[in-house]
Amino acid sequence: MKKHNYSAGPCILPQEVFEKSAQAILNFDGIDLSLLEISHRSKEFVAVMEEARALVLELLGLEGKGYQALFLHGGASLEFLMVPYNLMAANGKAAYLDTGTWASGAIKEAKHFGETIIVASSKPENYNHIPKNYTIPADANYFHCTSNNTIFGTQMKSFPQTNIPVVCDMSSDIFSRSLDFSKFDLIYAGAQKNMGPAGTTLVVVKEEILGKTNRYIPSMLDYQQHIDKESMYNTPPVFPIYASLLTLQWLKKLGGIPAIEKINEAKANLLYTEIDRNPLFSGTAAKEDRSNMNATFVLNNESHTETFDKLWKAAGISGLTGHRSVGGYRASMYNALPLESVQVLVDVMKDLENKI
Amino acid sequence: MKKHNYSAGPCILPQEVFEKSAQAILNFDGIDLSLLEISHRSKEFVAVMEEARALVLELLGLEGKGYQALFLHGGASLEFLMVPYNLMAANGKAAYLDTGTWASGAIKEAKHFGETIIVASSKPENYNHIPKNYTIPADANYFHCTSNNTIFGTQMKSFPQTNIPVVCDMSSDIFSRSLDFSKFDLIYAGAQKNMGPAGTTLVVVKEEILGKTNRYIPSMLDYQQHIDKESMYNTPPVFPIYASLLTLQWLKKLGGIPAIEKINEAKANLLYTEIDRNPLFSGTAAKEDRSNMNATFVLNNESHTETFDKLWKAAGISGLTGHRSVGGYRASMYNALPLESVQVLVDVMKDLENKI
Repeated sequence: MKKHNYSAGPCILPQEVFEKSAQAILNFDGIDLSLLEISHRSKEFVAVMEEARALVLELLGLEGKGYQALFLHGGASLEFLMVPYNLMAANGKAAYLDTGTWASGAIKEAKHFGETIIVASSKPENYNHIPKNYTIPADANYFHCTSNNTIFGTQMKSFPQTNIPVVCDMSSDIFSRSLDFSKFDLIYAGAQKNMGPAGTTLVVVKEEILGKTNRYIPSMLDYQQHIDKESMYNTPPVFPIYASLLTLQWLKKLGGIPAIEKINEAKANLLYTEIDRNPLFSGTAAKEDRSNMNATFVLNNESHTETFDKLWKAAGISGLTGHRSVGGYRASMYNALPLESVQVLVDVMKDLENKI
Repeated sequence: MKKHNYSAGPCILPQEVFEKSAQAILNFDGIDLSLLEISHRSKEFVAVMEEARALVLELLGLEGKGYQALFLHGGASLEFLMVPYNLMAANGKAAYLDTGTWASGAIKEAKHFGETIIVASSKPENYNHIPKNYTIPADANYFHCTSNNTIFGTQMKSFPQTNIPVVCDMSSDIFSRSLDFSKFDLIYAGAQKNMGPAGTTLVVVKEEILGKTNRYIPSMLDYQQHIDKESMYNTPPVFPIYASLLTLQWLKKLGGIPAIEKINEAKANLLYTEIDRNPLFSGTAAKEDRSNMNATFVLNNESHTETFDKLWKAAGISGLTGHRSVGGYRASMYNALPLESVQVLVDVMKDLENKI
């Protein structure tokens, strides 16, 4: 039976990414060797890396604007550390917006580097909304925010104006919607949502913001070193990068971000309309901040849990259980999830209503 | 034509690893989902991680001896930084043996943490041997060495006795030979030689040596945090870890380290015997320190280069070119390289002799 994969990440990727990457493991590009057994400095893999880095900038509309794309190790969690190492001056300070678990994780690491100002936080309301109307100190070295909060199902619909560098963790919504990406100075994203499998992290950085901290930066954590080595300071995570390239190629063929944005809006509208219509369910995030990637909702009457869980599992849906820190349900609708899968979920919700 | 893959890393892996990992990308374990699209916290992937961690300790003979195996991000280069972060006391010092490019890289990072004593170095001789008869300061926090030097073709055949913790970068010869691994307190290894594809790093650490530095350790660089989270502090590099598990399973089926050690010795003997016999070639590493993993050699007369290169390429050999920093040739004979491939190379060397 066809599965409808709502996993919050690692998550569904396009079927052609699975097929092409499996083929590359058996015989890469017809060279009679596996992708896994060739040197990362072979001309074949260097071409993969170059195309992936260029395609990121092309899809984000950042070509020729002073940005560099890097595919690094470590996950977004390592970026929590690399950002202050590279951007917070030795006696400087940084400003953070606290919108959820991952924002909070980034703040925790920054605090060890210097003054870390939390400009606003929705923690007292269990992160059910995005704070607004806060002030960003003009003398901070940078402002850090998280564009989408997978666990709580909220998403920043606009970004503050500021004259200091803006750093954004876009792990869970990059490549999903049109934004003026040139308003950001550093974007990072773990690959394992819209970009590829787990095991690599995308960093897109405006080169001119680097080199200003007067701080020693360990080699592996230094963006400039990675730029100078063309994202091959050390052996890169070859397979995750190749599968990411395939995913980016798929997105380009589809029509890029504007095309996927329409599909993502259709999916989100379909599901949120049902959550609001169906008397058995309630959404948990503030309506104006609802994420188009992760819809969080609960059953109004917990006694229906067993029935509902049986119904969606029987329909081939997987990965719908909410994060352990919030409970309820979470429907993650990343780029590769088809509208058809959302229709199946909506039908199950209607079915529950009819059965009760 | 069958390829004989001498790549220095990423390198040849067992054919069954390619086949099984490609299958897992199409349909993992019969669950109708790709390995790439399931949660790292799914029971299926948790089982992979647990088996991989246990199998490492089993193969190294370290079960029940207070060690933990971790599969981390970052490559061995990140360990150059994590080792002093975790083991060098705030006002402490560390002792390093300088046997090549990677040892030197580890030393460079350690110097920023405190006094870093180089107990011996073979750099003046372009790292063509392993230094011996050095003294390790008894008051250093740890001693660091590199067991095998891929670029220069040298390998430590014995390890010094010392009462301080011994840290070893075994990236290029782990799981290739029998050692008393309990003599080491921390072993690390990038996966991409004998253990799997690029994209994960194995750390095997004796837990009792941790927690003694009085130094703040960032979360992602803290071994204890990774241990506490059972190697899932953040989303791990799922595919590289799974392919590593398949490689470890292959090794276990073969008979473990004692079985592969015999094969590796046969391969190395075959090639070094020819290098020493054939008047056209010379080995570049000191004989007593020759690596069983990477044999480095040169043509005595450079005018034979073109002919030799044509011959080995025609025989289906790939990846034989020496590292750019030393030139000549490098035959990397990792675990998965069959004896048959070494015979093909030796035959080509004899063929050259007959043709000249």
